[in-house]
Amino acid sequence: MSDKTIVTLEKIVALCKRRGFVFPSAEIYSGLNGVYDFGPMGTLLKQNIKKLWLKNVKSFDEEVVLLDGSILGAPQVWTASGHVENFSDPMVDCLNCKKRFRADEFDLTKGCPFCSKKELTDVRQFKLMFETQVGAMADQTSIAYLRPETAQSIFINFKNVYSTTRVKFPFGIAQIGKAFRNEITPKQFLFRMREFEQMELEFFCKPEQTDKYFDIWVQRRKDFYISLGLTPEKIRLRPHEKDELSHYSKGCKDVEYNFPFGWKELEGIANRVDFDLSQHTKHSGKDLSVFDQETQQSFMPNVVECSVGVERLFLTLLFDAYHEDVVENETRISLKLNPKVAPITCAVLPLTKKVAESAENVYLDLKKAGYNVQYDLSGSIGKRYRRQDEVGTPVCFTFDFDSIEDQKVTARNRDTLQQERIPVDQLKNYLDNLLKE
Amino acid sequence: MSDKTIVTLEKIVALCKRRGFVFPSAEIYSGLNGVYDFGPMGTLLKQNIKKLWLKNVKSFDEEVVLLDGSILGAPQVWTASGHVENFSDPMVDCLNCKKRFRADEFDLTKGCPFCSKKELTDVRQFKLMFETQVGAMADQTSIAYLRPETAQSIFINFKNVYSTTRVKFPFGIAQIGKAFRNEITPKQFLFRMREFEQMELEFFCKPEQTDKYFDIWVQRRKDFYISLGLTPEKIRLRPHEKDELSHYSKGCKDVEYNFPFGWKELEGIANRVDFDLSQHTKHSGKDLSVFDQETQQSFMPNVVECSVGVERLFLTLLFDAYHEDVVENETRISLKLNPKVAPITCAVLPLTKKVAESAENVYLDLKKAGYNVQYDLSGSIGKRYRRQDEVGTPVCFTFDFDSIEDQKVTARNRDTLQQERIPVDQLKNYLDNLLKE
Repeated sequence: MSDKTIVTLEKIVALCKRRGFVFPSAEIYSGLNGVYDFGPMGTLLKQNIKKLWLKNVKSFDEEVVLLDGSILGAPQVWTASGHVENFSDPMVDCLNCKKRFRADEFDLTKGCPFCSKKELTDVRQFKLMFETQVGAMADQTSIAYLRPETAQSIFINFKNVYSTTRVKFPFGIAQIGKAFRNEITPKQFLFRMREFEQMELEFFCKPEQTDKYFDIWVQRRKDFYISLGLTPEKIRLRPHEKDELSHYSKGCKDVEYNFPFGWKELEGIANRVDFDLSQHTKHSGKDLSVFDQETQQSFMPNVVECSVGVERLFLTLLFDAYHEDVVENETRISLKLNPKVAPITCAVLPLTKKVAESAENVYLDLKKAGYNVQYDLSGSIGKRYRRQDEVGTPVCFTFDFDSIEDQKVTARNRDTLQQERIPVDQLKNYLDNLLKE
Repeated sequence: MSDKTIVTLEKIVALCKRRGFVFPSAEIYSGLNGVYDFGPMGTLLKQNIKKLWLKNVKSFDEEVVLLDGSILGAPQVWTASGHVENFSDPMVDCLNCKKRFRADEFDLTKGCPFCSKKELTDVRQFKLMFETQVGAMADQTSIAYLRPETAQSIFINFKNVYSTTRVKFPFGIAQIGKAFRNEITPKQFLFRMREFEQMELEFFCKPEQTDKYFDIWVQRRKDFYISLGLTPEKIRLRPHEKDELSHYSKGCKDVEYNFPFGWKELEGIANRVDFDLSQHTKHSGKDLSVFDQETQQSFMPNVVECSVGVERLFLTLLFDAYHEDVVENETRISLKLNPKVAPITCAVLPLTKKVAESAENVYLDLKKAGYNVQYDLSGSIGKRYRRQDEVGTPVCFTFDFDSIEDQKVTARNRDTLQQERIPVDQLKNYLDNLLKE
């Protein structure tokens, strides 16, 4: 087999649709732009991503506790955070072709980027927060926002968490949850969506510890992506320039990945100092500072934030895992996903219908033990291998006529294509080893 | 110790706040009615609930695959489902005291239930779906709804899932995700919320299989609650009367729990026949029927739905587990949660600061192995036991002076209060046994 991979966004989108990873949301009704539904394979992949992220951020000596905040947000939260005033993109309309687009993504001096006419409106600020109304009163007092980031749920609950858990500094609060941004032009499939899921760690430090932990977390986060199996050469760290820094940030580094469309942010690690807790102290009138028993003084905790989108990592993993090679004179597509990441850990394939019942019992046994396993009886064994290759299943167990006699199956490796006979009663051990770090 | 438990909603709310299970959302800004944030203990408990539900629905012979649909929903979906037209509650206002409430929950013939004046408006239908606008056009075409149930995400993706996974009938599609209902009067804490999480299984059958699988799933779902440790006497099945049945339902049974405020629905199991797929076929123009190779005929799959709210089950588990007894002349509150359900599986407690470092190493070892474990050094050992009792931790490992010598800890049982010495190198086995079914 020879590798001849050229990966494109179009190939990934097609694979995601074909194999049940991702469907446009409400596709039978022509979809909702920038919003997606995740099919069986996609849901399993998302589950693995979230599980591995959470396990990773909890794996260090410092304590990390969890939070699960609401999506509906009181307007005061987003006023304090600065989103009501500042969270918007510059938008422009073309009066000729009626297109609407982001003013900062095109050179407008030559006219409309779509029809070339110079009939553009002035640039206006378009608010990116989704708005709704809560309760039966339809007036200003009932406005709520869908949170545009999960971070603020953590900050507004900081005192509640701190006082109920008795954690010691430094410590983290981790959250996985949905966030929503009404992008003017969502694009690149899962890269920039209107509804997405964030994995955020807010790590609270005494002020003098912050710089140190910023560096520590930058390294830890980069290591995490290597541990998932991403190609190390396609990952880099990029410190933000002074003029890119957000107003609340003392320093920021992005973990970038080399996508087919260029080096782009995968995760941002930011030193937010005490910006958020100070803002909420000011706006809520509740003092969010903390009393230090050692120094007998109060201080406002500082924050190191690590923030990544589930779907963006999902897309990165697919790009990185996508391979084409030639096997038996045919192009074979496979996802070389780390077994911990792969949606299906193994497939059980009866060679023919005559051994289907025995094979199915092997499958059910593995399934009931909690492994992500598939059973497939349809089509030639070659076609079935290809289907598993395309969803990244690291191993297929083929049950043949000999299997009934010797109680062994043929384990076929996705990447090497090598086959070996494994006793049926050793399959769980085999899978456990595969999933081990 | 003697049991003298009287459990009330107020006690549960107070415990949830005190121990970091649940906080009113955006509490520092006076909250958002009917919306909650989940603290460290609550997030762990929710995680366990979701994990156990998923494991359970996937544990049977029939295949169950997963879906994760979007929250933002195209309006056509909710027109087809009947929600745009029918999903509303009758609402009335009192012109005197300005209260607004559900007309069907009070006897209005005597006047306002709050101020007794007979100055009520006519009853109007209040729409329960949250509305927002997607994209930069603020007009009718941009309306989207926050899904009021997760089920429709499954129905509109039925054909996508069926064609990409090659599943055989009968099979299930399971989904866990958020749903939103703009209740006029949210109430009873987590029982009826405006933002909540559903766990839904839509089980697709050939029409002639449906009645059989309806009965099978009713039994399985009841068994599930028993397996979680809920008191069997507080669970019952109640078939819906003909006049309570939804228009789409051929039969429905509720699993009810005996809450302090009466027998109420915990889960609904409904025979939805082919209502949903037929509606979406009609409204989308896409034929969602399936061709049966055996009979060489097309049929519209029928659906058995099992639907429960994560937070309602959360509340049920707390009510059921809540105990008060008298230990050493003091009232002790404990949550007698099944170890699989309990947010923290064990706590490691150094008897004094002198053994803190050794104890912390035991804790870190368990934590890095992935157990949900807490370390607590603050206060008397009795106080620390009480804190763990209140969050339902089934066992505490106390590290004392002897522990350094004999490498054993004292395991103290939450329910029996019995203590036994366990070798440190046996703790993982001990916990694995505790978590075993």
